[in-house]
Amino acid sequence: MTSGGFHIRQLTVVGLGLMGGSMALALRDYADNICGVDPSSSTRCYAVENGIVDHATDDLKEGVAEADVVILAAPVRVVVEMLGRRIGSYLRSNTLLIDLGSTKRDIIDAMGRLPIGVQAIGGHPMTGKERSGVEASDANLYEGRPFVLCETRRATPATRLRALGLVNAIRALPIEMDAERHDRVVATISHLPYLLSAAMVATVAEEADKDDAVWQLASGGFRDMSRLTGSNIQMMSDIVSTNTQAIAVLLAQFRMQLALLEKMLIGRDDKELADALHPVREARLHWFDNYGGKGNL
Amino acid sequence: MTSGGFHIRQLTVVGLGLMGGSMALALRDYADNICGVDPSSSTRCYAVENGIVDHATDDLKEGVAEADVVILAAPVRVVVEMLGRRIGSYLRSNTLLIDLGSTKRDIIDAMGRLPIGVQAIGGHPMTGKERSGVEASDANLYEGRPFVLCETRRATPATRLRALGLVNAIRALPIEMDAERHDRVVATISHLPYLLSAAMVATVAEEADKDDAVWQLASGGFRDMSRLTGSNIQMMSDIVSTNTQAIAVLLAQFRMQLALLEKMLIGRDDKELADALHPVREARLHWFDNYGGKGNL
Repeated sequence: MTSGGFHIRQLTVVGLGLMGGSMALALRDYADNICGVDPSSSTRCYAVENGIVDHATDDLKEGVAEADVVILAAPVRVVVEMLGRRIGSYLRSNTLLIDLGSTKRDIIDAMGRLPIGVQAIGGHPMTGKERSGVEASDANLYEGRPFVLCETRRATPATRLRALGLVNAIRALPIEMDAERHDRVVATISHLPYLLSAAMVATVAEEADKDDAVWQLASGGFRDMSRLTGSNIQMMSDIVSTNTQAIAVLLAQFRMQLALLEKMLIGRDDKELADALHPVREARLHWFDNYGGKGNL
Repeated sequence: MTSGGFHIRQLTVVGLGLMGGSMALALRDYADNICGVDPSSSTRCYAVENGIVDHATDDLKEGVAEADVVILAAPVRVVVEMLGRRIGSYLRSNTLLIDLGSTKRDIIDAMGRLPIGVQAIGGHPMTGKERSGVEASDANLYEGRPFVLCETRRATPATRLRALGLVNAIRALPIEMDAERHDRVVATISHLPYLLSAAMVATVAEEADKDDAVWQLASGGFRDMSRLTGSNIQMMSDIVSTNTQAIAVLLAQFRMQLALLEKMLIGRDDKELADALHPVREARLHWFDNYGGKGNL
């Protein structure tokens, strides 16, 4: 039941979606007992019947009361609300509390206001799948993927070591940074691309309303650039709404870059345009060669 | 040697890259004789040795003099220059002249100024590959893909029928439209996405200069959105430079759409944001279900 010294008596996963279900599966061998908390009875039923968790409840208090590790695998704003309202009083002292939210500042702030004695730390595993829901749970979802850890006012040195043990157990790669830095990085690599994809598809759809040939002729370039708009809207809207500040900065920088390219293009300065495009192409190729083959979402 | 009545005595392909080489291979069974024109001796050598063409030359006049079908498979600005300078006087009367350029207005204009008797029509096959060059030639490159045909002042009804025969022979799907409409459609589905991808990568690279974690954490969303920046810069710069007017219109529309999304986001109007994202997501899914599985570039 233990490996590398990491051991959990009772693990409670709050939110049995793709991320939470996969976390339960990945920690199966490290936990004596796994409890799932989810409002949906069909989700709880599926998770228990398929051995993802040992038992399940819709009662947060009951679910976390005996846990020594609690993972909050709910959307960012649900996590923030849970942290603000009740969960602090339900937890035993020294419980390790970690979340999997895609933005960190609001969550880290809320964790900092938990009762002293709760060992709270922010987490963001950089992984995912096209499919969501407990049925898509996968014990290997986190393997080899970056897992960001953000300290909080409730994180002691012991908290950090336990969180590193957990990340190690699921075979992810821990990366420690503060919440502000994290939120700016994900605004850059994830939220900016999503919003650009959405604005592009809106533009293309507007043209397609006037001319059917637009849809007919759209091909691989459009396919790649539009894929992110297929994301779950509730999830993405939850994410971007909790990171507006960093996103606004990135959008301003993007607009500047686009204006530069347009100026060269309209000015028919081909040499200057090519000179601007070369480092962009190099940056992409460099990233792809070093990191690009690894991500799945 | 014939099929469906379409038959070529001498086919000349000017420019033995991926597109030209694939055209020669796809028309192999319809042409008694195929000549390739290319400035590179190694390309000519490869094309002859691999049976892509029967013979090859670097002399445009010699290459096209006896042809009854000439395919211009060079970059847009090279095609425009060829049309403006010499080729008209080299061609026999009633030769079918078609190009494969990615933008059509400049080429159609130049074709309209060719000597009367040349049967000139614009073409744009909507296909491609990651790899380029004569070595990547593929007899099935055009199969099942849209092939836009644009009339010119030198296109007679017979020109149109011959061009449709050619498109049919390579098993592509003919779509007839005027040059202006074509250029606006490709600005929408191809040039806009490319410029957005480039401006996005420039923005991300700027952030990565300040923080290494940007490259480390970038994942599948960034990968898709950045892929187009890996395109050949000379080719893309040639394409966008010959379509600045349509691109400027599309960029203005895109900026409007992005500003709308940002306004909802910053205003924290979640309901409005979700209401705006839903039709975008629907449009993407609708396109993907109907057309999305087919394109290769």
